[in-house]
Amino acid sequence: MAKVLTSKEENYSQWYNDLVAKADLAENSAVRGCMVIKPYGYAIWEKMQAQLDKMFKETGHVNAYFPLFIPKSFFSKEAAHVEGFAKECAVVTHYRLKNDPDGKGIVVDPDAKLEEELIIRPTSETIIWSTYKNWIQSYRDLPILCNQWANVVRWEMRTRMFLRTTEFLWQEGHTAHETSQEALEETERMINIYATFAEDFMAIPVIKGAKSANERFAGALETYTIEALMQDGKALQSGTSHFLGQNFAKAFDVQYATRDGKLDYVWATSWGASTRLIGALIMAHSDNNGLVLPPKLAPYQVVIVPIYKNMEQLAEISVKVEEIMVKLRARGISVKYDNRDTQRPGWKFAEYELKGVPVRLAIGPRDLENGTVEVARRDTLEKSVEKLENIDQLVENLLEAIQKNIYSKAFKFRAENTTIVDSYDEFKKLLNTKGGFFLAHWDGTSETEIRIKEETKATIRCIPFDSVEEEGKCMVTGKPSHRRVIFALAY
Amino acid sequence: MAKVLTSKEENYSQWYNDLVAKADLAENSAVRGCMVIKPYGYAIWEKMQAQLDKMFKETGHVNAYFPLFIPKSFFSKEAAHVEGFAKECAVVTHYRLKNDPDGKGIVVDPDAKLEEELIIRPTSETIIWSTYKNWIQSYRDLPILCNQWANVVRWEMRTRMFLRTTEFLWQEGHTAHETSQEALEETERMINIYATFAEDFMAIPVIKGAKSANERFAGALETYTIEALMQDGKALQSGTSHFLGQNFAKAFDVQYATRDGKLDYVWATSWGASTRLIGALIMAHSDNNGLVLPPKLAPYQVVIVPIYKNMEQLAEISVKVEEIMVKLRARGISVKYDNRDTQRPGWKFAEYELKGVPVRLAIGPRDLENGTVEVARRDTLEKSVEKLENIDQLVENLLEAIQKNIYSKAFKFRAENTTIVDSYDEFKKLLNTKGGFFLAHWDGTSETEIRIKEETKATIRCIPFDSVEEEGKCMVTGKPSHRRVIFALAY
Repeated sequence: MAKVLTSKEENYSQWYNDLVAKADLAENSAVRGCMVIKPYGYAIWEKMQAQLDKMFKETGHVNAYFPLFIPKSFFSKEAAHVEGFAKECAVVTHYRLKNDPDGKGIVVDPDAKLEEELIIRPTSETIIWSTYKNWIQSYRDLPILCNQWANVVRWEMRTRMFLRTTEFLWQEGHTAHETSQEALEETERMINIYATFAEDFMAIPVIKGAKSANERFAGALETYTIEALMQDGKALQSGTSHFLGQNFAKAFDVQYATRDGKLDYVWATSWGASTRLIGALIMAHSDNNGLVLPPKLAPYQVVIVPIYKNMEQLAEISVKVEEIMVKLRARGISVKYDNRDTQRPGWKFAEYELKGVPVRLAIGPRDLENGTVEVARRDTLEKSVEKLENIDQLVENLLEAIQKNIYSKAFKFRAENTTIVDSYDEFKKLLNTKGGFFLAHWDGTSETEIRIKEETKATIRCIPFDSVEEEGKCMVTGKPSHRRVIFALAY
Repeated sequence: MAKVLTSKEENYSQWYNDLVAKADLAENSAVRGCMVIKPYGYAIWEKMQAQLDKMFKETGHVNAYFPLFIPKSFFSKEAAHVEGFAKECAVVTHYRLKNDPDGKGIVVDPDAKLEEELIIRPTSETIIWSTYKNWIQSYRDLPILCNQWANVVRWEMRTRMFLRTTEFLWQEGHTAHETSQEALEETERMINIYATFAEDFMAIPVIKGAKSANERFAGALETYTIEALMQDGKALQSGTSHFLGQNFAKAFDVQYATRDGKLDYVWATSWGASTRLIGALIMAHSDNNGLVLPPKLAPYQVVIVPIYKNMEQLAEISVKVEEIMVKLRARGISVKYDNRDTQRPGWKFAEYELKGVPVRLAIGPRDLENGTVEVARRDTLEKSVEKLENIDQLVENLLEAIQKNIYSKAFKFRAENTTIVDSYDEFKKLLNTKGGFFLAHWDGTSETEIRIKEETKATIRCIPFDSVEEEGKCMVTGKPSHRRVIFALAY
């Protein structure tokens, strides 16, 4: 088999780019920073969407759709918010093209200039809260628990496929509540949903925690995050849930009649996860042979490759394969039969390894005679010959085992790459040699946080929810600290 | 019950607007021509999406995602295409905002002007064919059968919720084929899928046919359409499928190595259906009490309303309702129990009539004693008292009956409002008195078609696939014609 990927060890970044391309996940488009999500990559996104959507609906949320465009003036209404997003906004200024009077193709029609420019949503708090104003009069109208699946645009200077693109797909939940307490509970509920999704479906262990003030969402009082560790020792923020307080309600004057007949501003949350998750999925599990997909998110969980010398053999094998597929599908297992005669089995094996299909079955004439099939699992690359009789049960068990094993492997990797440090020198040394998560004391000030970022590029990923109260000294300033926080280099 | 809708007879257009608002389907946003699709309206769209997506996948299509932005120069590459869309394009010219140097909020940063303007996609042929160029080398790479679910923007001067909005949601399929024949078959396959969806799920009978040259999609050699008749006698184009020939392949230089070793341009189709379908659904079936939804697309098919005087009664009823819900759900029927104590039963009845819930069950203390339940169907407004024993079977049958009845009613309406005309005077008279579809002879020229449109506002909706060969004379010019075509006023 020809080596198609740069190895991780040689050049991690190039390995990632190669993998995205060779596994047919995505490619750069003709538009700077925008990607084309190819069918195989999009199929993974559809699996993610279906599961997240189910979890949102089970917790009482409904979907809706709000405009792509945000009037510029809306943007200015929440001061921190505009500060956070103004520098990366795509702006629509005109609404018509016309033939170039000089006869050279088409030009923007200067007569079709908008009175007020429209921003392509980088996130939808402002347009949604301007809408909620109409929906909310009294406590009876609360809570509002809306989510939308949408595209958003942030004009990033440096882009990486899935991780940071100018346009990306995501979901954004926006909820409105009577009390601060209720909104905080919602903020926590949603970060828990993201954590469950990451761990149980993506097979990626995550650390839940709160962002430091510096790293909070623009306009939020609290940002909760789930942080995952990639195989190169860098962190990837994989989902965030924001407690917005009354900031947006005040900016858009959304008041409600309370139960005791007063007027108060509504409490808000917002929370989102994006196609970035596909980047996390790739970087957490894959190897030098290609993608390793957790069975629960694989576009197809099993691929069957026939091994044959002539068309009669193929026909006989196909009859048997049909039986196997019926049995697998009856168990809810998705399966693809690749009977293309244009490619050899070896080529197909490499192709499905690249694409991370969890289980491969290969079946040839000898297998037909013996009532057997060759079973290969993608995560360990182990092969065995198994009886066809209970193959459906065996594959079902194997898929469960793979899902667990991928998680365990990632969990072990994270454990091995989480370091408790007490000195800034040690931190700086290990950050660039070992990498990973660092548990360190910090004095709680933005100054120190910024200094560390400037000197090392590391950031506080989060203040973990489960961090233990512990008296210590900030590794930089020596000032007192009551718990360790997580530092890491991050995507 | 207070009348909440303007009646159809009084003012059809106002009735429609009232209904969209009162049934909580959508509302205008702060952005001109853009709507907010509210949760109940969006739930209908989700039902439509799920079914269409299933039908696309069953016919071998896969989903992908292409950029929102199209470089202006791409747009000019297919002459008819740019001609068709240039006048309604939203244009991004800048990528950054900054603080106003005069201290008045934020302004567009003049230093962040794009070298080449970006168009927000009004449809994606150009960006997709620029991508397909990389995907296609030989006949082995064909066919490509991609679909995308996306938002698009067309800067319309006059907008109506769902029917014509500046931004709307849709799906657009874009396929690439070896031969003209194969592409034509695909074009036909997809218009058939839309027709099946309209008739079997939306319960709307449609006429399948080809558009005249004038009404074709910008860049297409053939446009197939499904045309539905609304209750005010106007037509609504509900889905289109385009045979694009080699136009886009030529514009983007997409050639492939043929089976006999030559180079040829690839053949293309595209096809789309949008949130406009929700407008069709409303206008085809609803009445002066509100929406009438076909059970197959209703967000919930059954609502249960308890009738009680005190909380003990409510508790007893709720136990029984729980049993009913379990039985209904076991049959795949979606059901909502509205046990809110803040609203009276009468208010709830009106609410669910407005929202078009196909079946309403009401259950009170006497029903508990008698083992009965009151069953009301939304389409006919008939009520009956039924035994609780086999209520699940009864409701399942009723939902099927409602689905059929709504279709039959629409079919009968269309039959009664389809007129064969042979004189232009008769046509003009009936167009404004009776309305509906008109089967008339036409000489096949754009001149005559344009003249009719200018004089009457009626357009040729389609040349029906099943039109009978018949010698006749054009109703306007008297020139020979070989088949009748469908004229109507249209949305």
